[in-house]
Amino acid sequence: MIVKMHKKATQQDYEHLIKALEAKKFKIRDVSSDTVKIFGVIGDTASLDIHDVKAYEGVEQVIRVQSPFKQASRTFKEEDTIITINKDLMIGGNHPVMIAGPCSVESEAQLDLTAKFLSEQGVKVLRGGAFKPRTSPYTFQGLEVEGLKIMRRVADKYGMSVISEIPSAEHLEVFNTYTDIIQVGARNMQNFDLLKALGKAKRPIMLKRGLSATIEEWLMSAEYIIHHGNAEVILAERGIRTFETYTRNTLDISSVLAVKHLSHLPIIIDPSHAAGRWHMIEDLSKAALAVGAHGLMVEVHHNPETALSDGAQSLKFDTFESMMTQLHHLSNALNRPLK
Amino acid sequence: MIVKMHKKATQQDYEHLIKALEAKKFKIRDVSSDTVKIFGVIGDTASLDIHDVKAYEGVEQVIRVQSPFKQASRTFKEEDTIITINKDLMIGGNHPVMIAGPCSVESEAQLDLTAKFLSEQGVKVLRGGAFKPRTSPYTFQGLEVEGLKIMRRVADKYGMSVISEIPSAEHLEVFNTYTDIIQVGARNMQNFDLLKALGKAKRPIMLKRGLSATIEEWLMSAEYIIHHGNAEVILAERGIRTFETYTRNTLDISSVLAVKHLSHLPIIIDPSHAAGRWHMIEDLSKAALAVGAHGLMVEVHHNPETALSDGAQSLKFDTFESMMTQLHHLSNALNRPLK
Amino acid sequence: MIVKMHKKATQQDYEHLIKALEAKKFKIRDVSSDTVKIFGVIGDTASLDIHDVKAYEGVEQVIRVQSPFKQASRTFKEEDTIITINKDLMIGGNHPVMIAGPCSVESEAQLDLTAKFLSEQGVKVLRGGAFKPRTSPYTFQGLEVEGLKIMRRVADKYGMSVISEIPSAEHLEVFNTYTDIIQVGARNMQNFDLLKALGKAKRPIMLKRGLSATIEEWLMSAEYIIHHGNAEVILAERGIRTFETYTRNTLDISSVLAVKHLSHLPIIIDPSHAAGRWHMIEDLSKAALAVGAHGLMVEVHHNPETALSDGAQSLKFDTFESMMTQLHHLSNALNRPLK
Amino acid sequence: MIVKMHKKATQQDYEHLIKALEAKKFKIRDVSSDTVKIFGVIGDTASLDIHDVKAYEGVEQVIRVQSPFKQASRTFKEEDTIITINKDLMIGGNHPVMIAGPCSVESEAQLDLTAKFLSEQGVKVLRGGAFKPRTSPYTFQGLEVEGLKIMRRVADKYGMSVISEIPSAEHLEVFNTYTDIIQVGARNMQNFDLLKALGKAKRPIMLKRGLSATIEEWLMSAEYIIHHGNAEVILAERGIRTFETYTRNTLDISSVLAVKHLSHLPIIIDPSHAAGRWHMIEDLSKAALAVGAHGLMVEVHHNPETALSDGAQSLKFDTFESMMTQLHHLSNALNRPLK
Repeated sequence: MIVKMHKKATQQDYEHLIKALEAKKFKIRDVSSDTVKIFGVIGDTASLDIHDVKAYEGVEQVIRVQSPFKQASRTFKEEDTIITINKDLMIGGNHPVMIAGPCSVESEAQLDLTAKFLSEQGVKVLRGGAFKPRTSPYTFQGLEVEGLKIMRRVADKYGMSVISEIPSAEHLEVFNTYTDIIQVGARNMQNFDLLKALGKAKRPIMLKRGLSATIEEWLMSAEYIIHHGNAEVILAERGIRTFETYTRNTLDISSVLAVKHLSHLPIIIDPSHAAGRWHMIEDLSKAALAVGAHGLMVEVHHNPETALSDGAQSLKFDTFESMMTQLHHLSNALNRPLK
Repeated sequence: MIVKMHKKATQQDYEHLIKALEAKKFKIRDVSSDTVKIFGVIGDTASLDIHDVKAYEGVEQVIRVQSPFKQASRTFKEEDTIITINKDLMIGGNHPVMIAGPCSVESEAQLDLTAKFLSEQGVKVLRGGAFKPRTSPYTFQGLEVEGLKIMRRVADKYGMSVISEIPSAEHLEVFNTYTDIIQVGARNMQNFDLLKALGKAKRPIMLKRGLSATIEEWLMSAEYIIHHGNAEVILAERGIRTFETYTRNTLDISSVLAVKHLSHLPIIIDPSHAAGRWHMIEDLSKAALAVGAHGLMVEVHHNPETALSDGAQSLKFDTFESMMTQLHHLSNALNRPLK
Repeated sequence: MIVKMHKKATQQDYEHLIKALEAKKFKIRDVSSDTVKIFGVIGDTASLDIHDVKAYEGVEQVIRVQSPFKQASRTFKEEDTIITINKDLMIGGNHPVMIAGPCSVESEAQLDLTAKFLSEQGVKVLRGGAFKPRTSPYTFQGLEVEGLKIMRRVADKYGMSVISEIPSAEHLEVFNTYTDIIQVGARNMQNFDLLKALGKAKRPIMLKRGLSATIEEWLMSAEYIIHHGNAEVILAERGIRTFETYTRNTLDISSVLAVKHLSHLPIIIDPSHAAGRWHMIEDLSKAALAVGAHGLMVEVHHNPETALSDGAQSLKFDTFESMMTQLHHLSNALNRPLK
Repeated sequence: MIVKMHKKATQQDYEHLIKALEAKKFKIRDVSSDTVKIFGVIGDTASLDIHDVKAYEGVEQVIRVQSPFKQASRTFKEEDTIITINKDLMIGGNHPVMIAGPCSVESEAQLDLTAKFLSEQGVKVLRGGAFKPRTSPYTFQGLEVEGLKIMRRVADKYGMSVISEIPSAEHLEVFNTYTDIIQVGARNMQNFDLLKALGKAKRPIMLKRGLSATIEEWLMSAEYIIHHGNAEVILAERGIRTFETYTRNTLDISSVLAVKHLSHLPIIIDPSHAAGRWHMIEDLSKAALAVGAHGLMVEVHHNPETALSDGAQSLKFDTFESMMTQLHHLSNALNRPLK
């Protein structure tokens, strides 16, 4: 951590702060120039909040040099984390994984139709929303626990795994019971009570990036889960908020490379929520594979027009099928065959 | 709601969509130009999700014209909502209210010292964090329920009201017991499970604006609380995320005017979290009063350097005192005396 | 264009506005709901500024439904624009084009070395900065006209074309003389005096997207150039500003799809400026090809450490060579062979 | 400047970089922790580009600690800069200055009417656009040089000063002739060719903040002008781009405090472009005075509905008059009487 003193800071301000930091067992090393007093704080600075140091009289600026996350970092663990969902399915290795399904679970009939189709396409993980956090209280809010039970039954029938979004910690037990991967939605990325609870979950967590979160903040949320006991975290990039309005969000494709550089955790791409337009999904999925994502999560609906949510970004069966042909071809060419 | 069809949409696409909308009891009115097919959808469009309409074949663009919030809107209720905390304290009227206290409750001694000082300054609402949602799991997480009990005891001693942030729905009962106003933090603005639960709270809610939330999204979150049963919502602007780094966030002072235009709910300003630098608090507070905010919420600490959180933005007692003199002078000149 | 009247607007306000719009030959069609007065304005609304209509008494909101650009739009011209640089080089068709070279032209020796290498790699367009718009006046500002002359000589020696950035309209003649494609930098995307002048240029224009420009604004700037006489505009996505700091900018890969949908103009990707880190260039280039970009522009330097600008994002020769192997392999697999 | 080496950087990488920096006369001071190699670079680092240092093998991160601007900084010159326009008018001192006028100069009759009214209100500086940089080529582009001549004649008639926006360097001579203050528009904030030319202008420059510029970038643009010979720079905050759509831009009121802290240059507020809605101007102007701005610039039109640009944000005469009463009252209460 680097501290820059204000031009008008007194020698007393400086010594007072140094003393406080040394009392916390940090070492101080001076890097002052002729005109400005600057020093480095050496030690385990992850426990030091920038804003707390700034509270000292005479401090102009505090800059963190070492990343505030530890266990989520590549420095902590050099080799890639590979998460085993079951004996046939691992996320994080050389085979990108396809996760697909409807935005919302609407009925057993709907989900059965979709799961049957997807399993025939070789898809091994079924996604679906049971609890639907919608921005309006006047729109469909999901089948809740009943939706999770439907997912489990249907997935078992077709030999698939289940991923669904948890709305709050009080539902952890049902998610432990009915799902294989528990998803944290973008709007809950910094719901710290939920993150702490998920440290005790018996399932791997898929942590979506917040709407305007930096990669560092995202990894800090992963750190919360790991710190509280659950090391199996998969990151999911789903687009960030920018000024662009053509797309629902802006897919940050570079985040795949950044995460792989900073962390050992696997990262997948959700092009459906990023684009918000079904006709972009295939090409964005190709880009995701080309850049090295560990997986894709896309929305598929047997009849998007009647979908109870997110129809605009859902693929029809035939479009999904032709996309899969393209993605297999591409992933083979990239020497990272899609699973 | 306005729907624009794609240039290549067929007459069949158009009729199919019209039929579906008419089946939902909406009326259709054509506004096409020579080159593009455009039509208006008339009725209670708050229940229609833009992304669901976009799912139809041939749709190019869907634009919402009427606001998606109802009960939170000025159209629904023309006169200002004034929230009565107790017989001496109302939020929303012609007297802006000062809310102050430490970022975190650290001990009874600390809080007593602060509350004594603040009550002498005429402050009627004591703020303090008991559950601390911090971005790092390695920093102070708050005294939790014990912190709330301390707040209650100390506030009662000095005849003050209590406001504190709730981390999740499971703590609702203790917040009903120990606080007078329940705060929703910026990172939980779209934690819909929490918002629904707060519809059942016995206390007014102070809803902070999310880090990159639009005013419409913020009012939609207020709508959730109102729709679920609690009409007493106070909005709190605490700065939004922008590219500027000098300040912790960018105070959106115009949001006071926008909220007053769009909604009947009261709105206060939190300059401490917006600026993140104590030396800016006084001037930003003046601006907040000048623009017509219904109140201020500022962080005060008897010794910011030793604060367990947010020391950089906390005012010392003497600075707070001299600020109060200025604010009383200004609010009198503005003919909206501070309470 | 859709106009929504304020709840308190009078019938007189409404009639006054309608009359003004009809006087401009627009047709009016009502889409009011029970509670709000809303109407469509039909005609050539590209000449109507939203903010001018908002000036009328009683207007609450004005929404543009038709795009404000005309000649740049896919509606105006359905087939892709293909720009012929010379008999061997076209931008916009089925063969993505590689453009490469140093950030700055530093000397004839440097450029000769680089151009020789690049031409051996099959690269047909040489990029290089002669006028360097840097954020600090204290850093290298370029060789200016001498730099352009060097580029021309070296490019001719190796049978390459030249692209370089123009800093202002007064240099148009030298750019017409020494370059084959004239680049407009991101910071000049809305320098309208420059855009107007480029309407008279004798060269195709490569228009970089502004740092926080929307795609609509970008296409409006293209519209300026076309409207003033030059239809040969190539768009270049180079990353947009977001809150993410790991990368210099955030590459908006989806913009390729959006531009192809909205416009007939070709679009290329500049991964160097987007990422700001050389180790990300290869993977982002793959993503750009996968998503269908018409070309790539990358920075290459024989010794990035001594580069006078942007060394961090410049590829070394050996890295570029191995990247080219990968990109040829991928573009062949995608059936859009790189040129 | 602080440099952090990559975990895998070799000792050779480190020594190679140190040597290069020492060759440029910088001093190196080590601040490494146990796990990471970090060092400070001491000397005149304003001439060092972060991205150039990042080009070295093994470098992970480079952080600037000292501000990259020199002459614009408060460190360079401690006392406030006060710019004398004429014997009656100074910008930067204890009297905030009101600048007002129409968005565009439309005719001599229009401007005469407005200037007469404004001068009666005590306004001393007349604003008006002669060259209009509009986002669409299909809207009014201004009266150009004729507009400047009209401004000069009318201003002289009423004893006012003239400020107008320069579109590019080639018009410098006419601006030197007809204006008293030359304005740089937000979209030209990083048009470096223009900034260099303005270093030779004979008039003070009002530099508007770019749409998504940081305060540091804004001050760097001021630095360009000062470095090239013109120390009389006034900064103008006119709102920045955020996700909020209710307002045209988001007024960054805190920038007044930040600029005053970082720089000695005066700063004024333009609430008209920030809000884009005339009904917000009065309250935002109050906030600007409350926070300590050195002036205000607002748009006024005798009949906003017929304005050729920006009618929505223009005040009518009666509204302006009543606002002035309020602002005089407030500025007197603040002990900084408006001029």
